Amino acid sequence: MIDEHESGYFTEANSAEVVVARNRNAKDERLKEVMEVITRKLHEAVKEIEPTQEEWFGAIMFLTQTGQICNEWRQEYILLSDVLGVSMLVDAINNRKPSGASESTVLGPFHVADAPELPMGSNICLDQKGEPMFVHGRILDTEGNPIAGAKIDVWQANDEGFYDVQQKGIQPDFNLRGVFRTGADGRYWFHGVKPKYYPIPDDGPVGKLLGALGRHPNRPAHLHYIVEAEGFDALTTHIFDPDDPYIDSDAVFGVKRSLLAEFRKVEDAEAAAKVEVAAPFYDVEFDFVLSRKGGN
Amino acid sequence: MIDEHESGYFTEANSAEVVVARNRNAKDERLKEVMEVITRKLHEAVKEIEPTQEEWFGAIMFLTQTGQICNEWRQEYILLSDVLGVSMLVDAINNRKPSGASESTVLGPFHVADAPELPMGSNICLDQKGEPMFVHGRILDTEGNPIAGAKIDVWQANDEGFYDVQQKGIQPDFNLRGVFRTGADGRYWFHGVKPKYYPIPDDGPVGKLLGALGRHPNRPAHLHYIVEAEGFDALTTHIFDPDDPYIDSDAVFGVKRSLLAEFRKVEDAEAAAKVEVAAPFYDVEFDFVLSRKGGN
Repeated sequence: MIDEHESGYFTEANSAEVVVARNRNAKDERLKEVMEVITRKLHEAVKEIEPTQEEWFGAIMFLTQTGQICNEWRQEYILLSDVLGVSMLVDAINNRKPSGASESTVLGPFHVADAPELPMGSNICLDQKGEPMFVHGRILDTEGNPIAGAKIDVWQANDEGFYDVQQKGIQPDFNLRGVFRTGADGRYWFHGVKPKYYPIPDDGPVGKLLGALGRHPNRPAHLHYIVEAEGFDALTTHIFDPDDPYIDSDAVFGVKRSLLAEFRKVEDAEAAAKVEVAAPFYDVEFDFVLSRKGGN
Repeated sequence: MIDEHESGYFTEANSAEVVVARNRNAKDERLKEVMEVITRKLHEAVKEIEPTQEEWFGAIMFLTQTGQICNEWRQEYILLSDVLGVSMLVDAINNRKPSGASESTVLGPFHVADAPELPMGSNICLDQKGEPMFVHGRILDTEGNPIAGAKIDVWQANDEGFYDVQQKGIQPDFNLRGVFRTGADGRYWFHGVKPKYYPIPDDGPVGKLLGALGRHPNRPAHLHYIVEAEGFDALTTHIFDPDDPYIDSDAVFGVKRSLLAEFRKVEDAEAAAKVEVAAPFYDVEFDFVLSRKGGN
């Protein structure tokens, strides 16, 4: 530790050490530890970048504007965290799974807590818009055994890339949302519509940054899931359409190889009748594997 | 570079590389370089901290609130930069001086561009409040030669720790500000009042952070200077009172050893009469040494 009185006034060389030493009386050990890492990495970054005063002020203004566009409906700092891969990194750190368990991805801003519980096989598409999709699979433990009584909370954007909560009055309430519960065989199945890619809000500072970085704001088509069962870790994840034009460039880095589903187009009328839709429809089969609580 | 299609979906291990690779088509090489450093250091920090989702969201809210308190008169992100030592680091990087030249420190938010040019020896204290101070010294080059025609722009807080612009209607306009120009001997001298320490604004998120870190918000008593002369690098700096209670804990890390002046109390009436004040007064002698433009 630097004794500031003896040797520790600020210099370019000892900058981080002086700042860290100043926080020695922090009221909370965790805060002290977090601020030490932030200070060290921040000073390392500044020393590597060597910003001009103008560049530094540009950064100040970017951070200010990113805060100022936030409101009850818009969280630009989460978007910034998303496009820098930080949201996914925090998700990964907090959801390390044992081998064989399904991987997590980000929750996103469009989950609603009170979606209706529906009979297995229901159609979550309430407005009959879009290409029919039949989604099915199993909830399993890491040994491959079915999990009975698992709760599957699913939500998705419509065929134009909007969630119901983004189009109140246009889409019915709770459109493309549903909660299902597995029986003894661990199986789930329901009807929806083929989702479409959509942009994150890109009319603010983060959208401008994406533009300057030569990046698009789109997220490839996906379905959201929270799968829960007693005795197992909850799983918050997506499944993705591997044929989406943005599958390799999700603006928020949410895609993982293990989360690519197959959206198989079925033209056969007989196969369609079996699952009570008209051909053509998309068949999506995906099993979710939950890790046991406290397991590894 | 990671080919995302072949191997580069996001994982905890390769998180920074995937994000950096995504910025490969940035429209500006400098922006690309800056974002690469920021991304790497940010991911290193997150991996070292391993924030919980709640901690991550706390950080998001802190950054949001720091932006939202900013207005025409309040720049909380500059304060954040200040208390993390980043403002001083950027200042240091942009003002590396040859050996023997006076060191710089931060400009601060209270400089005004149109302070009046005054005859050498003027009293910049327009309201006669506070303890008299006589400030004098020389403007020199690094060989010790006087610099003629140097412009000295000085400003200071009053004996209660407030600048004129913070107390419009209470202090006279341009109180404790003045611009002076040296003659052939490079000497400067003027009258002011002994300055006092003062807090940076601490009623916002940055003040709360300082409190949680067990830190006070005070800056030790100082005078601000911008010294300019043709053919020399401009010098933005302070001189500090080494007897100030906060001299070893400036909230913004502005103090450098070489910027400690002596505020010598003079009780002698004869000495006071010589500089046209009443005893007791504070005598402050300080030479500023400018570096030659393009020199080293």
